[in-house]
Amino acid sequence: MECQDYSLTRTVERDSLNLNPLQRGGFLPVEARKALFEFSDGYSVCDYCAGRLDEIKKPSVTNFLDDLAQFLKVDTVRTVHGAREGKFAVMHAMCKPGDTIVVDGNAHYTTHLAAERNGLNMAEVPTSGHPHYRVNPEGYREVVDQLQDNGEEPSLLVLTHVDGNYGNLSDSSIVGKIAAEKGIPLLLNCAYSMGRLPIDAKKLKADFLVGSGHKSMAASGPIGVLGVKEEWAEQVLKRSPRHEVKELEMLGCTSRGAPLATLMASLPHVIERTKKWDDEVQKTRKFVTEMEKIGEIKQIGVRPKEHDLVRFETPLFHQIAETHPRRGFFLYEELKKRNIVGIKRGQTQWFKCSIYGFTPQQADYIILSFQEIGQKYGD
Amino acid sequence: MECQDYSLTRTVERDSLNLNPLQRGGFLPVEARKALFEFSDGYSVCDYCAGRLDEIKKPSVTNFLDDLAQFLKVDTVRTVHGAREGKFAVMHAMCKPGDTIVVDGNAHYTTHLAAERNGLNMAEVPTSGHPHYRVNPEGYREVVDQLQDNGEEPSLLVLTHVDGNYGNLSDSSIVGKIAAEKGIPLLLNCAYSMGRLPIDAKKLKADFLVGSGHKSMAASGPIGVLGVKEEWAEQVLKRSPRHEVKELEMLGCTSRGAPLATLMASLPHVIERTKKWDDEVQKTRKFVTEMEKIGEIKQIGVRPKEHDLVRFETPLFHQIAETHPRRGFFLYEELKKRNIVGIKRGQTQWFKCSIYGFTPQQADYIILSFQEIGQKYGD
Repeated sequence: MECQDYSLTRTVERDSLNLNPLQRGGFLPVEARKALFEFSDGYSVCDYCAGRLDEIKKPSVTNFLDDLAQFLKVDTVRTVHGAREGKFAVMHAMCKPGDTIVVDGNAHYTTHLAAERNGLNMAEVPTSGHPHYRVNPEGYREVVDQLQDNGEEPSLLVLTHVDGNYGNLSDSSIVGKIAAEKGIPLLLNCAYSMGRLPIDAKKLKADFLVGSGHKSMAASGPIGVLGVKEEWAEQVLKRSPRHEVKELEMLGCTSRGAPLATLMASLPHVIERTKKWDDEVQKTRKFVTEMEKIGEIKQIGVRPKEHDLVRFETPLFHQIAETHPRRGFFLYEELKKRNIVGIKRGQTQWFKCSIYGFTPQQADYIILSFQEIGQKYGD
Repeated sequence: MECQDYSLTRTVERDSLNLNPLQRGGFLPVEARKALFEFSDGYSVCDYCAGRLDEIKKPSVTNFLDDLAQFLKVDTVRTVHGAREGKFAVMHAMCKPGDTIVVDGNAHYTTHLAAERNGLNMAEVPTSGHPHYRVNPEGYREVVDQLQDNGEEPSLLVLTHVDGNYGNLSDSSIVGKIAAEKGIPLLLNCAYSMGRLPIDAKKLKADFLVGSGHKSMAASGPIGVLGVKEEWAEQVLKRSPRHEVKELEMLGCTSRGAPLATLMASLPHVIERTKKWDDEVQKTRKFVTEMEKIGEIKQIGVRPKEHDLVRFETPLFHQIAETHPRRGFFLYEELKKRNIVGIKRGQTQWFKCSIYGFTPQQADYIILSFQEIGQKYGD
């Protein structure tokens, strides 16, 4: 048989400034590129495995997990395939089908899927809605109280630390305090925070953390991190009755390959960059200020920004699209001409973007480009 | 904090002839190395995703999955994180906790873990034991009959196509026929076969196939393949009630990253190499013949070999180890001196190995090396 073409190049995407918030935290530093080269082949991280991925000495997964646990101030860590797989594993170990869990109104769709796949019901802490979409941490108490009044004991609280729609940063410590009072463990979804901003599981009062290597920890996908408080380690990392060194929820081993090597290689880089988080927030706030000078562009979500992911409503661009010969594609195409990518093709009414990791010069260039496009067609 | 050293190089392992059967099928061809370079960064396969990994057009995951389905003669395929995750997903969708499934005595430990994690009981079709460890396909009928006599209706049959201990190739078509007669679906674990030898789901009469990219399909780990017969597609690929395009058992998307790019890039190479499977079997048989001339080395498992994974009992090397100053390490060290790796350090009583993919000259050199080591210390 003859194979079709798979378009396995991405020169434009690699060479341009990419504003996709999903991608800004996943660019590999040179150390990770080297590790990828070393561990490209199939099962190569398993050269010296004696049965447990987390105990491999060469490459030293053991040392890495020790460092990672220390970095996150969490008792035990494992690598998983991604944040969603980490959430699924925690729910699978901590809940039984028919249980109810509490999630926030900004939860990522994979939180819903992990719960649905586990046969769980979800009670939702609503957001404040347009335009801030703020999650009130005290809402968790209300929802738990309501459930308990109805005779239901939720088995897990799940909080989105930073959500992927508005980039709102939730106050985990308050939810964690409520969780502790109620005696219900808290799972914190750090897919957009772990690897970008400092994470301290103790201060955040989380029983479980999940993070995403490809989203925010400068690693090749798919890989994630699961952090577990000592209290729950035995339950979540339960061993197989038949193969006693193997952990059930990990199906023995998880990320047996190249993404793990990149996550390991990137850790020193990631630790350093989280120290500069305040600069990133300042850069983002300046970006918002400048963008809001264009037409009626408006930042949606909590103000001022506490995270690099920004959602803008852009009625000006939407107006231009109505009469532009290229219709909704004009914005994507104008940006592409300027070597800027990452805004979805055809999207003009609103978009999400991030300038995380760009130099101030690159950020200025991006602002200038949006200004130019606004001026070119605007009034 | 200061990070420890993670030993993220593997020069010796990359530059040597690697006999580890786990790794022989996972070496990347140059096309896959290029794809890895293009798609190194985090979420880069998702540049143009509109919500479904399997429907991405650039890179063309759609075209790739079409080709892969055609190659495997299966109705529907998805990528998963590995064979074990594929088995877990099928069991999770097809069985309920407390169900019994039937597995063979050569099943990989991950088959057991996938079943245990799903709360399933396992009834086992035993092997013939030492020295051939053959699985009699008719044994499935006996075990199902016994269960049914006891009023139990197994919900799934799982067969290991080629096992990882002896490299025995099972006759799936007979088990598939029994499965069809009994009205119980058959899941075939092709981790050691898909990508090495031609797979035809129709001829093999399998309802589900799982394969391993890193083990046998020339891909970076972790990635696997799940093949599903039309009849079960709706059940196994059920959509989320809340997010209607997302497939529950896939948690929306599976391998969102670099390993997928390598699996795609390697497919033409993999298709070509499966055409030369008979040559690989002949090469393995010659290897066994030559190895058995050394001391009392004996191939364990079904004879003659029908797969490249070979298990040898090597009493000669074990005898040498008893008096050698380096004890059990001598064999590993003697091989390493000759740029041969992949036999576990300290192992001399028996070992597993494979010369899959080596040129005849490399195979001769490996045989010569074992002969030399035997002669150097042997009588």
